[in-house]
Amino acid sequence: MLGFGTVGEGTYRMLTDNADEIARKTGARGEVIKIGIKDASKPRTLPATMFTTDLEAVVRDPNIDVICELMGGESPAGEMVELALSLGKHVVTANKELIAKHGSRLITKARELELDLHFEAAVGGGIPVVQPLKHQLAGNDVIKLMGILNGTTNYILTQMEENGADFSDALAEAQAKGYAEADPTNDVDGFDTMYKISILAAIAFGKQVPLDKVHREGIRKVSASDMKYAKQFGYKIKLLGICEETADDQVLVRVHPTMIPLGHQIASVRDVYNAVWLHGDFVGDLMFSGRGAGAHPTASAVVGDLIDVMRNIIIGGSGSAIPYGTGLATTSISELETRYYLRFEVEDRPGTLGEITTAFGRRSVGLAAMEMRTKVGGKGEIAFLTHVCREANFLTALEEVSRLPCVAKVENYIRVEQ
Amino acid sequence: MLGFGTVGEGTYRMLTDNADEIARKTGARGEVIKIGIKDASKPRTLPATMFTTDLEAVVRDPNIDVICELMGGESPAGEMVELALSLGKHVVTANKELIAKHGSRLITKARELELDLHFEAAVGGGIPVVQPLKHQLAGNDVIKLMGILNGTTNYILTQMEENGADFSDALAEAQAKGYAEADPTNDVDGFDTMYKISILAAIAFGKQVPLDKVHREGIRKVSASDMKYAKQFGYKIKLLGICEETADDQVLVRVHPTMIPLGHQIASVRDVYNAVWLHGDFVGDLMFSGRGAGAHPTASAVVGDLIDVMRNIIIGGSGSAIPYGTGLATTSISELETRYYLRFEVEDRPGTLGEITTAFGRRSVGLAAMEMRTKVGGKGEIAFLTHVCREANFLTALEEVSRLPCVAKVENYIRVEQ
Repeated sequence: MLGFGTVGEGTYRMLTDNADEIARKTGARGEVIKIGIKDASKPRTLPATMFTTDLEAVVRDPNIDVICELMGGESPAGEMVELALSLGKHVVTANKELIAKHGSRLITKARELELDLHFEAAVGGGIPVVQPLKHQLAGNDVIKLMGILNGTTNYILTQMEENGADFSDALAEAQAKGYAEADPTNDVDGFDTMYKISILAAIAFGKQVPLDKVHREGIRKVSASDMKYAKQFGYKIKLLGICEETADDQVLVRVHPTMIPLGHQIASVRDVYNAVWLHGDFVGDLMFSGRGAGAHPTASAVVGDLIDVMRNIIIGGSGSAIPYGTGLATTSISELETRYYLRFEVEDRPGTLGEITTAFGRRSVGLAAMEMRTKVGGKGEIAFLTHVCREANFLTALEEVSRLPCVAKVENYIRVEQ
Repeated sequence: MLGFGTVGEGTYRMLTDNADEIARKTGARGEVIKIGIKDASKPRTLPATMFTTDLEAVVRDPNIDVICELMGGESPAGEMVELALSLGKHVVTANKELIAKHGSRLITKARELELDLHFEAAVGGGIPVVQPLKHQLAGNDVIKLMGILNGTTNYILTQMEENGADFSDALAEAQAKGYAEADPTNDVDGFDTMYKISILAAIAFGKQVPLDKVHREGIRKVSASDMKYAKQFGYKIKLLGICEETADDQVLVRVHPTMIPLGHQIASVRDVYNAVWLHGDFVGDLMFSGRGAGAHPTASAVVGDLIDVMRNIIIGGSGSAIPYGTGLATTSISELETRYYLRFEVEDRPGTLGEITTAFGRRSVGLAAMEMRTKVGGKGEIAFLTHVCREANFLTALEEVSRLPCVAKVENYIRVEQ
């Protein structure tokens, strides 16, 4: 085992607590032989003899058949996984960044060497989704896939929605509860979700997604005010990772706050829960939901992978994963056609509404719903829902509207799913 | 392929429509060589040369490596599956009755012969649940599992709940739409759900469930009136299959209409959709939902299994499933501890409520909520929710209450989940 943070400890505990059950299901007993860690000075719950800071020694140990990589990050995890494969060892990892960036190469290498490389825990924590996409759903052409893939941001958005909290207060609360890190960038700016949706897109569409082609926005701009209007319009705001077919062998992959109709299944996923919703050509609509993070749920996925590796070693069935290629062709988000929510601060005077709506009309951006209210100091606030329009058109119109004298400020805009 | 009803046709179509994608994911092309059918006189969408009524000839054909059994029922499907395994052929089946009754023996035989026997489509249609339970969730001790496993009854209950329809009208509508068969017994009396929950229990708990130990009730007694009270009390009524650990190596498996709190995830599963919710010791709460029946969703599961079989043939990894044993020890439902909803027709006169509540009190059945209304002809209606009590106690109390002169009729009682 490489890494012994919360997930590492959870995995060790699950392997120990449920050892008999696991032995029955695999026909063999696994044993954690050595644990590689970065920091020898941290207090540990196991005897010191179990640990070493010499990661490579763990990987090279001839008594070890399977490397369970739970350190996270690109390096040194990537080098250790490569080395393990080169030495003929199976790998189970929870490392989303590594798989999102190097999955194609690593899976190809594992396949060539007839080794297993499993990463169920990299997406959706304990929710089985990576392997079901690869196996039970493999016959489907996936038309669209959307996921709430980050528990921290879903917790923050749930607090904002249900308790009227501002983003900064909800973030502080998430940090106090241990759901968010001191530097929350990875979660709230959508990097974590980007890695995860990229992995799901690679499996669904058969090619690795260039990460610089994924449109990524976080939730920092979402306000308590947006939450109120969303509710009035009949929506919830969720940070979604979305991938969908836009043309033959071309997809659009994106991460951004999204308004979801209250009646959509994924709208009901609260707190730290994650969910993956998809539409396949034969299976139709499908949703998986559960705990997407935390020591125990993530351990559940890691141990499930370890059980599969053990079974495959016994039966001689290792290395069955079909590698995906690289360079998935992507569509620019400027070609997206969807509805938009947007919110302005305006001058509260006669003519304002007419000027704004006329400007949108000139650019063929149709308005479907509106809410307005008076603010103090001669200002007002207007929120719109548009009809379906092309993102490039919408942004041009928005830019023109923002220059109208009656518009004090464009506060926010959020894409809307139907 | 054995059987060419809606699922058979759907499977054939998926294999054809998505052939290139399937070839990419398996590294091989599968081919449907021959289709065994019972009735040669039915019009078919494929050339007559594809069909034969000699099922055994299909199974014995030396050019055929995999038998895809989609006939359903115990016989002759069971004999054909046994023969296929004996001849060294892998089997994919959607046959819930066969697996619920003979799964342990058939899986053991497949394992001994190093063959695959997959049956993802037997439970939950297109929803991946059988294999995720066997693989990604295998490290968990499953504490409780509940499923909406029959689309027909969920459609009927949804119609009753949302449109105030009576059972018989909702059933007639389901039959008109093709969701229910002319003889609806298998669905509405809970047999279909019983087979499916038994299969899930066998996988979760490692032993086949004796079907005569599964408590089974259907939805015929649920009325529009029950739906109204359920809503007032904050619940929905669903036909659930439930299995849970009651003691070490002992489980309670049951199928009955159940009142579920509105806030529970499974309460929001409408129409023909199915869902499986479970709580595992490490993964926590998890839910899968999607289309549980129909040609295309079921084909999705069958083809997923076929893809796995093909991969395993290529890699040499067939027969990795760990057989489960037989004779799972079961707890009687009379030992269940839960809350109950119940509804009486009563004489509308002073003292009635006191007599009833006193009688329940004598048997230590606490009452938590009540609704009552006056009916015509000197009658009234009372609905109660009890506190948690033991089923045996509750039924004794109910029997005593039913004999009170003020009680005209016990209309219904329904178990309540929290």
